[in-house]
Amino acid sequence: MTTSPGPAQPELTQEERAAVYKCILNRRDVRRQFTDRPIDDAVLARILNAAHHAPSVGFMQPWDFIVVRDPAVKGAVFDAFTRANTEAADRFPDARRDAYRRLRLEGIRQAPINLCLTCDRSRAGPVVLGRTHQPEMDLYSVVCAVQTLWLAARAENIGVGWVSILAYDDLRRALGIPPEIQPVAYLCLGHVDGFAAEPDLQTAGWRARLPLADLVWFDGWQRRDGDEPLLSAIGALTGEPPTD
Amino acid sequence: MTTSPGPAQPELTQEERAAVYKCILNRRDVRRQFTDRPIDDAVLARILNAAHHAPSVGFMQPWDFIVVRDPAVKGAVFDAFTRANTEAADRFPDARRDAYRRLRLEGIRQAPINLCLTCDRSRAGPVVLGRTHQPEMDLYSVVCAVQTLWLAARAENIGVGWVSILAYDDLRRALGIPPEIQPVAYLCLGHVDGFAAEPDLQTAGWRARLPLADLVWFDGWQRRDGDEPLLSAIGALTGEPPTD
Repeated sequence: MTTSPGPAQPELTQEERAAVYKCILNRRDVRRQFTDRPIDDAVLARILNAAHHAPSVGFMQPWDFIVVRDPAVKGAVFDAFTRANTEAADRFPDARRDAYRRLRLEGIRQAPINLCLTCDRSRAGPVVLGRTHQPEMDLYSVVCAVQTLWLAARAENIGVGWVSILAYDDLRRALGIPPEIQPVAYLCLGHVDGFAAEPDLQTAGWRARLPLADLVWFDGWQRRDGDEPLLSAIGALTGEPPTD
Repeated sequence: MTTSPGPAQPELTQEERAAVYKCILNRRDVRRQFTDRPIDDAVLARILNAAHHAPSVGFMQPWDFIVVRDPAVKGAVFDAFTRANTEAADRFPDARRDAYRRLRLEGIRQAPINLCLTCDRSRAGPVVLGRTHQPEMDLYSVVCAVQTLWLAARAENIGVGWVSILAYDDLRRALGIPPEIQPVAYLCLGHVDGFAAEPDLQTAGWRARLPLADLVWFDGWQRRDGDEPLLSAIGALTGEPPTD
């Protein structure tokens, strides 16, 4: 057995780097603005192939992709969303509840493609390299696939929304997912009229973006000793004022 | 309160799309090949800012970033890895154990920067939009930040490795992380001599890449009725033979 790597892969150029950042910074969670235009199979194949190249613990690749196009199946998921969303609204304090109810939180029926990503926790046998001490790593691998898919879709100018206001059991029932398979994400995909300049929840005044520098520590939790050039670099990049 | 979006964001061009795919398909989990070259603070600031633009449930942004540079702290984490890795090897059947022991699974001391991403589950109060029915969504948001950071680093030609063979309690002790904060990922970052053409675990014969088409279903778990043009498109893209 050899562990030597294959030939080295190409460096990314400055232009390519800028494209990746453009994609990351302009990605949005889309729940409105889906158009009727179908997604070409060649495009969907590229997006799924990108997701399949996400990192996975022990190279487990524990994901499956359920492509949902049938209006009856979408309808069942939408009904499950509606039930969950009604319950969810009731959990917020009065002052937030009305604001919550005004938000648009899903695009299940409008998006031409819905996509459920699942985790088969037994795919690589009972002992998985890298999962021995952090048992969630297989679920986390599927989440890495979700975010990779999301960025690939943005690169195709296709919007993605993650609908998490769904009871897992309802999702299992709607899609016939057996007990041993864990649903991880239910996504809506489609072409859009445009991508908003900022997250919908920020625009709606629900919650603001936090200053990055307030979230960065050094060599220990909430440790910061003296001047840190990295914090100045963050300030220069984001225009945030220096933190105390 | 308005929920109207801001001005539409720019479409990505074909060249930009190609750059995003190049980044995604050539990302690797790096445990060897780190060089001594330090990471510029301006580069690290860009990478962290990318991670901070990951999606998060309810725009919660539950992440913190602990930058680890102190050799003593790295040493404590390396000791924790060594303990966990010895335990891990013992869990594999005989035939796999020797192969496991030959793998290089961390670059803690070689990488100039280690980075721990954590989740503050109480950051947005007890009730979080989108977490009411899927309580893991805040942890998953931090994983989205990890994968976003990983791709931004690849765009900077910086290698990243995710070290998950660590007991959470050891990680808490080494970094002073309090009980109410959940460690999610411990990463090693650094410039590299090159990126391998395929995952190390594939090169080592540990596990092969699965055919993508075997993982794609339609309107229900393991459902596939008749010819599916998407499967042909996947075959055309990946060169996989058609599945039954």
